[in-house]
Amino acid sequence: MKLTILGCHSATPTASTRPTSQVLEIRGNLFLIDCGEGTQMAMRTSRVKFSRIKNIFISHLHGDHFFGLIGMISTFCLLGRDTPLTIYGPKGIREIILLQLKLTKSYTTFDLRFRESESKDSQLIYEDDKVTVTTIPLDHRVYTNGYLFEEKPLDRKLDVVACEEYGVDQAYYRKVKQGHDIELASGEVISNDLLTFNPVAAKSYAFCSDTMYKPDIVPIIKNATVLYHESTFLKSHEDLCERTKHSTAAQAADIAKQANVGTLILGHYSTRYGDYELFRKEAQEIFPTVELAADGKVFEF
Amino acid sequence: MKLTILGCHSATPTASTRPTSQVLEIRGNLFLIDCGEGTQMAMRTSRVKFSRIKNIFISHLHGDHFFGLIGMISTFCLLGRDTPLTIYGPKGIREIILLQLKLTKSYTTFDLRFRESESKDSQLIYEDDKVTVTTIPLDHRVYTNGYLFEEKPLDRKLDVVACEEYGVDQAYYRKVKQGHDIELASGEVISNDLLTFNPVAAKSYAFCSDTMYKPDIVPIIKNATVLYHESTFLKSHEDLCERTKHSTAAQAADIAKQANVGTLILGHYSTRYGDYELFRKEAQEIFPTVELAADGKVFEF
Repeated sequence: MKLTILGCHSATPTASTRPTSQVLEIRGNLFLIDCGEGTQMAMRTSRVKFSRIKNIFISHLHGDHFFGLIGMISTFCLLGRDTPLTIYGPKGIREIILLQLKLTKSYTTFDLRFRESESKDSQLIYEDDKVTVTTIPLDHRVYTNGYLFEEKPLDRKLDVVACEEYGVDQAYYRKVKQGHDIELASGEVISNDLLTFNPVAAKSYAFCSDTMYKPDIVPIIKNATVLYHESTFLKSHEDLCERTKHSTAAQAADIAKQANVGTLILGHYSTRYGDYELFRKEAQEIFPTVELAADGKVFEF
Repeated sequence: MKLTILGCHSATPTASTRPTSQVLEIRGNLFLIDCGEGTQMAMRTSRVKFSRIKNIFISHLHGDHFFGLIGMISTFCLLGRDTPLTIYGPKGIREIILLQLKLTKSYTTFDLRFRESESKDSQLIYEDDKVTVTTIPLDHRVYTNGYLFEEKPLDRKLDVVACEEYGVDQAYYRKVKQGHDIELASGEVISNDLLTFNPVAAKSYAFCSDTMYKPDIVPIIKNATVLYHESTFLKSHEDLCERTKHSTAAQAADIAKQANVGTLILGHYSTRYGDYELFRKEAQEIFPTVELAADGKVFEF
């Protein structure tokens, strides 16, 4: 998995900070997560190929998470795109986009689909042969979902030497990789663990923004390889979390610890702070493996 | 007048080029003209104070001219603005903005007004004590207006020495500056031109984008101090003008010449060209005083 942070700041964009948007690459597939104003420019800066984006996931209808979407779709039209595009997001996203396409007399050259969510329960909303995406219901001022991207379990690795020694016919190699035991022509059954090595563990990425502290999500994101959790504030401004429905770095770390994730990435910083290292420091008092999102930064895991 | 070019490129924004937006300052009043994606970031870069923008003029409903508007209004809300804001633009702009404010549950902290145009005739749409704004009906793929900003005529300059010599009472100075002749106590009438100097000429700025070659606009923009006229293409791509309803640099210069303007500013370049000096060169074969718009460039006139 490769995660490119296109923007990771809250509220209003500035001359030097971009609102939320990320590109997640899983086994060659690109998923765009949120799309604040200026995302298409950030994608060009980060050299993300527009045509590879086939699915866009919008967490909620606050401007800093989707105002760049209509511009991106419009650019896709101008570029004569023909690949279908699916937008996942809260109910309302379809109306906003279609009204603007209609009033700007823009006609999509490609199939544009919408999958709107209204449910307050976690739901499987996307599945292909390599990846599933599940919503993570969050608690914000408007209806908001995070998204859990999970690789499907990978095949076991073939121990070719062992297979040859046991005399397993190559015709069975696919079944072996899928984890099956094998019955030889002699009738002897060879246990799969003698013929294979453990596969690389399937990875997962949980995107949780925007939300106030919500331990309900822990079972959904349990053992995720990487968790991106918003940390708009530091503990010193915890009093603002209730009204604005945001989290502190300490609260994000607490969720990471309860969920036993591999790495916590912090972001969605309020622009009131100058030194983002304070977020890392605060979180690391609770959870050790903390990374800071930054516009343009790439994480590989 | 001071004109700040926030963005001057056509169609899709890139990592280094911005779509159309300009700030025009006339005697202390700031007018925002068009508002492509990323305009609020460009305003911060150019240090334009958000609170001084009270009137925004949108030429037409193509994304590269208004997709930044909802983000800007949203930022005004977040900043707790209380100054009224009026948006001038084609019918439809109100619906687009209000739907997005409704679905994002954003409530303006200020009075937000819309003045939508549908007329195909030139109309006076704005007037205060210093400035008038008149629409310039253009010819594009969708309903489009340019805008003519005109300073109101300034008072004549008082020739204090002459006034004293003729014995004009100071109580009449205001009338003298307004151009009236004065009758002295003796009954003698003193002609105004003996008591005043000509005022500084009132200036005007005509913004014409996007449009194909349309000589009909010449009477409206006649003798403008400065004309910004789109030049999406060079003559070598003139065949694209009919279909896309854009102009070449030569056509812009032809309009400038017919209208006898002071200076022509070119912009809205297609991103297919690397060297914008070619636009100046082409235009100067027809009209001598040509400037090239560039993102962030400031013109004072």
